Amino acid sequence: MRYELYYWPGIQGRGEFVRLALEEADAPYIDVARRKAGMSKMQRLLESKTIAHPPFAPPFLKAGPLLIAQTANILLFLGNRHALAPKTEAGRLWTHQLQLTIADFVTEAHDTHHPIASSLYYEDQKAEARRAAKAFREERLPKFLGYFERVLARARGPYLNGRALSYADLSLFQTVEGLRYAFPRAMARAEKKLPRVIALHDRVRERPRIAAYLASKRRLAFNQAGIYRRYPELDP
Amino acid sequence: MRYELYYWPGIQGRGEFVRLALEEADAPYIDVARRKAGMSKMQRLLESKTIAHPPFAPPFLKAGPLLIAQTANILLFLGNRHALAPKTEAGRLWTHQLQLTIADFVTEAHDTHHPIASSLYYEDQKAEARRAAKAFREERLPKFLGYFERVLARARGPYLNGRALSYADLSLFQTVEGLRYAFPRAMARAEKKLPRVIALHDRVRERPRIAAYLASKRRLAFNQAGIYRRYPELDP
Repeated sequence: MRYELYYWPGIQGRGEFVRLALEEADAPYIDVARRKAGMSKMQRLLESKTIAHPPFAPPFLKAGPLLIAQTANILLFLGNRHALAPKTEAGRLWTHQLQLTIADFVTEAHDTHHPIASSLYYEDQKAEARRAAKAFREERLPKFLGYFERVLARARGPYLNGRALSYADLSLFQTVEGLRYAFPRAMARAEKKLPRVIALHDRVRERPRIAAYLASKRRLAFNQAGIYRRYPELDP
Repeated sequence: MRYELYYWPGIQGRGEFVRLALEEADAPYIDVARRKAGMSKMQRLLESKTIAHPPFAPPFLKAGPLLIAQTANILLFLGNRHALAPKTEAGRLWTHQLQLTIADFVTEAHDTHHPIASSLYYEDQKAEARRAAKAFREERLPKFLGYFERVLARARGPYLNGRALSYADLSLFQTVEGLRYAFPRAMARAEKKLPRVIALHDRVRERPRIAAYLASKRRLAFNQAGIYRRYPELDP
């Protein structure tokens, strides 16, 4: 069985958290909307009046008869299927808890450039974005990353769960990547206090399948349409 | 075993989604931070340097040896334990997907009054809140609630999963409650197109344990410190 991933083409976005898990698991998948006629296939699914479990928004994953949406939910599913999460109930809940905390962090990072509404242009909320980004850089970014640094300090190994990699580690890697792209100056300052987070990031980057993925054309570059955008005025 | 729920006293907030599940399940629980010395107990847990799985923020639930945070994650756990979710993998993932979509909606509703930063006073982001609330009322509120209306139209019964109640139904009830408090005028308009969402809300409200809970002192009133706040200028 090949998975079918549905996500907006042209950006990493939330789809990237799913891609990283699929790549690390070496699971066969099609990135549907990046193929010919893929966007209209995705739109048809989003607008379908008959599917029983309609997604609210991309990303969603077709896994045989299942159609699963919400990034953290897709990872919950893939984590169990591909040993990207612990087997115990306590371990699975903890990994999911970390993922949901990363999801909150990602939303806040996105909202720095769209604090008023996602439907408005950045240019129409630039002054507000400047204020929102200041609070994010000074309060939220250190708070979230400091939290993961503390979690890693208590883990009995280099990963959030200790010795075994989980999808939450892949997501934390991606979060660091995105923050470095969007807030290079703020991150350069913050990273001095985050040795464990950065060590985890580097370790994930060097895993053979992740390294091969990052070097491939399947990995899109960050750009000004995604969650993480580089506006110098938001990172003075 | 009695559960211990930890959440900010004085507001419904995200803790309320957990309370509704515990009440419907008739599960014994202590609302720790609302009891004497409970706030310092919660703070000690949040600041503990030794617990293996520290929460990032309330709510969190102590269930015997487990300490579980993130609202949707707590509900995932309670849903399995107390038959508040389907038994099949497909049903559990679908219920969780709906809950995560509600969580996104709740965050957007909150951010209408704090679009710049949660750490700033409302008074310091009032103009921005007015713009954010307009987009929320006109675009996001109808989009989210319209989605749940469509889901209910396809369900084979009055609940999101069909005939059996799940924690997602309790959360959708609470979302309608909160939106009616914060945006009474926008909701009065929107509800005309949402017969199934409102019927679900009413059905949940009349379930014996929920009705008893809502009439008890355990149910806090909405107020101006919670997620849903009534600022008339945000609902003109």
